[in-house]
Amino acid sequence: MTQLQIARQGVVSPQMKLVAEKEGLDAEVVRQGIADGTIVIPANPGHRNLQPCGIGKGLSTKVNANVGTSSDFPSLENELEKVRVVMEYKSDAVMDLSTGGDINNIRRHIIEFCPLPLGTVPIYQAAIQAVERRGAIVNMTADDIFAAIEQQAEDGVDFMTVHCGVTQRSIEHLRQQARLTNVVSRGGAFLLGWILHNESENPLYDRYDRLLEIARRYDITLSLGDGMRPGSLSDATDRCQIQELLILGELVERAWNAGVQVMVEGPGHIPLDQVVTNVQLQKRVCRGAPFYVLGPLVTDVGAGYDHISAAIGGAVAAAAGADFLCYVTPSEHLSLPTPEEVKEGIIGARIAAHAADIVKGVKGAAEWDRRMSLARRNLDWDEQIRLSMDPAKGRRLHDRFAGKAGTCSMCGPYCAMALVEKYLGISLEKCPH
Amino acid sequence: MTQLQIARQGVVSPQMKLVAEKEGLDAEVVRQGIADGTIVIPANPGHRNLQPCGIGKGLSTKVNANVGTSSDFPSLENELEKVRVVMEYKSDAVMDLSTGGDINNIRRHIIEFCPLPLGTVPIYQAAIQAVERRGAIVNMTADDIFAAIEQQAEDGVDFMTVHCGVTQRSIEHLRQQARLTNVVSRGGAFLLGWILHNESENPLYDRYDRLLEIARRYDITLSLGDGMRPGSLSDATDRCQIQELLILGELVERAWNAGVQVMVEGPGHIPLDQVVTNVQLQKRVCRGAPFYVLGPLVTDVGAGYDHISAAIGGAVAAAAGADFLCYVTPSEHLSLPTPEEVKEGIIGARIAAHAADIVKGVKGAAEWDRRMSLARRNLDWDEQIRLSMDPAKGRRLHDRFAGKAGTCSMCGPYCAMALVEKYLGISLEKCPH
Repeated sequence: MTQLQIARQGVVSPQMKLVAEKEGLDAEVVRQGIADGTIVIPANPGHRNLQPCGIGKGLSTKVNANVGTSSDFPSLENELEKVRVVMEYKSDAVMDLSTGGDINNIRRHIIEFCPLPLGTVPIYQAAIQAVERRGAIVNMTADDIFAAIEQQAEDGVDFMTVHCGVTQRSIEHLRQQARLTNVVSRGGAFLLGWILHNESENPLYDRYDRLLEIARRYDITLSLGDGMRPGSLSDATDRCQIQELLILGELVERAWNAGVQVMVEGPGHIPLDQVVTNVQLQKRVCRGAPFYVLGPLVTDVGAGYDHISAAIGGAVAAAAGADFLCYVTPSEHLSLPTPEEVKEGIIGARIAAHAADIVKGVKGAAEWDRRMSLARRNLDWDEQIRLSMDPAKGRRLHDRFAGKAGTCSMCGPYCAMALVEKYLGISLEKCPH
Repeated sequence: MTQLQIARQGVVSPQMKLVAEKEGLDAEVVRQGIADGTIVIPANPGHRNLQPCGIGKGLSTKVNANVGTSSDFPSLENELEKVRVVMEYKSDAVMDLSTGGDINNIRRHIIEFCPLPLGTVPIYQAAIQAVERRGAIVNMTADDIFAAIEQQAEDGVDFMTVHCGVTQRSIEHLRQQARLTNVVSRGGAFLLGWILHNESENPLYDRYDRLLEIARRYDITLSLGDGMRPGSLSDATDRCQIQELLILGELVERAWNAGVQVMVEGPGHIPLDQVVTNVQLQKRVCRGAPFYVLGPLVTDVGAGYDHISAAIGGAVAAAAGADFLCYVTPSEHLSLPTPEEVKEGIIGARIAAHAADIVKGVKGAAEWDRRMSLARRNLDWDEQIRLSMDPAKGRRLHDRFAGKAGTCSMCGPYCAMALVEKYLGISLEKCPH
């Protein structure tokens, strides 16, 4: 049975119990959220070393980091090093988006190595195998797609992006929309090419019940992909994007009816003043299903620093109710990231998630800030560094120019904290915090 | 005459004309904004190589970068290298916050070298000289403070932070508030110590008319400092902070009545859901005077990455009407920044300012994004790199793993842009963008 089916029977699974403990919530709250569809726990029983993670309403905002080879750079070792960074810097989930080398082997290594929920986009494997076996992506068959999904499910993948909303109707809206950047989703582009070439409907839409049957069997959490997401601010919140969202909303209900856990993916490139609108739309149209956003990036011009553009959009989206932030690295739009850039992407997304969790009232979120500020007031550098997201960097930045008199090199003897303590005479014992 | 006095006479000054040209606005719009007090042009006639910059309503959001020695690290050369970075990465203004070495000499070098509007905090100089000449900050006299202000005005400083709102009344509110982090403003801390030790009122408040007289004589734009700004989320938007803001609002009107240009400084550390509130409060209480915010940081725990916390807060603040963003570098709370960190701080603040300018409808803002996305669609890497904020980094990231077939190493032959172009058959000639 899936976590959704278990929750509907009123039973708290071991996974629900663990998630509730991590979040500091009553297990019944988690169970009810799963039963309602507002929380998912991606947990394929085949992922044996999984540490379960809950995503959704009332839980802390989660962060995903993408890793994966490309056909030009197929090294397994590089990607495993990134997975190590993903774990060290506390991403909540990881997606393997490999498209180069022996992708079955890479995925199996990651599953074995990493206890985080693992996501994939199985259409990548189907497309690559179609090129190898049949000469072109457009020669892929529906059976090829479902075979890739089933194989990855057997391997223990916990959640899968499926671009079920890229349909003949969506493509018609795309043509009418005359976008600046038509389709920037890789899986969306594969399916668009396939649909147009074969003059057939998307098998992931047309045969959605077959997909649901596999998802239910392995308790795969479906992540309904937004193949029509805007790839530029000019295309944000347009008819084409919203048309696909309406389709996804219907597919959410069909997943629930089939006992399958489901979340919905969102953009992408969105002007700052449309971010909240996008979250509200998804929450209404998809009846509260968890929302998994990529960024969103609030400008198109941040290449080299897109982790910052994404942190802005991600913080605002999560504060408005988005549940799951896909990180963006500084190398987005330019190249595959290095392990160092993976780290920067994770920390950017974690800052965004945490800033949102403070205003969402997530248990323990504000307490972290309170402890940091108390350490700052006490000029307790060890504690400040221990509480930071990247203690090694904190240590390096502080120590390289360590100020005299216990203060930092910014202000030295003119440290406001030290001066005020002296003149105001508020001893730490009297501090109510 | 000050720009404000000129504007009130209905005259467009050369500075107003230049600002209008840079912004793509009618000069009369700029003149009216200055006359109303909603725009300032910090432009001391003594700053001979100044390229004037407008700050305020209807103009693009501006960015300030702080440089300056500390007593532990007094090197002039280091700070001039930072000023070079400030200019290269297009900060709109620079503040010299030096507290170490020969600070008169450092300031004069920066003024001579840099055509950006220069800001200072003269109380630093007064305090340091008091330590040298009188043995302690608290032995500083009111004349010492005004002498430092006048000397810096003579040197050509364009805008000055003056913590006029740190008064005996503010300190009483501070005591009652029982804050987590009492006062984190250096200038605020100096004045607090002085007021308590001398049992006297803040000379910058008590003798505000004398300050106004100097500011009018040199057309110094006053930047009313927020010595009581919250230094932690716990203290945000508290009575102590808002009490000071109320005082600053009254001082704004007195500045206007004296023909002196004025802006108001704001926090600081602010939870994401209080950022808009803070901007609205300042705009109402200070009758539309330009708002200059430090960050704001939306979490206390971002040490090592505070430029990202600040970009989140800065983007939301500017979109809500903040006019001027003071950058925060990755080394905030830890040490003096290096030139590389100055660059990162500027780019973070510029991304925030630009994301806001898009939604503010600032002329030309969205066009930059449109051109970048068109270059992306065309796989025109040279143009993408040219349009980025840090072309050298863009070039390095793209070229290190350059993909085959004109695509980047992220997707290689599976590039969505390339695939969709092929299958959808929308030629660039037909693209309406």
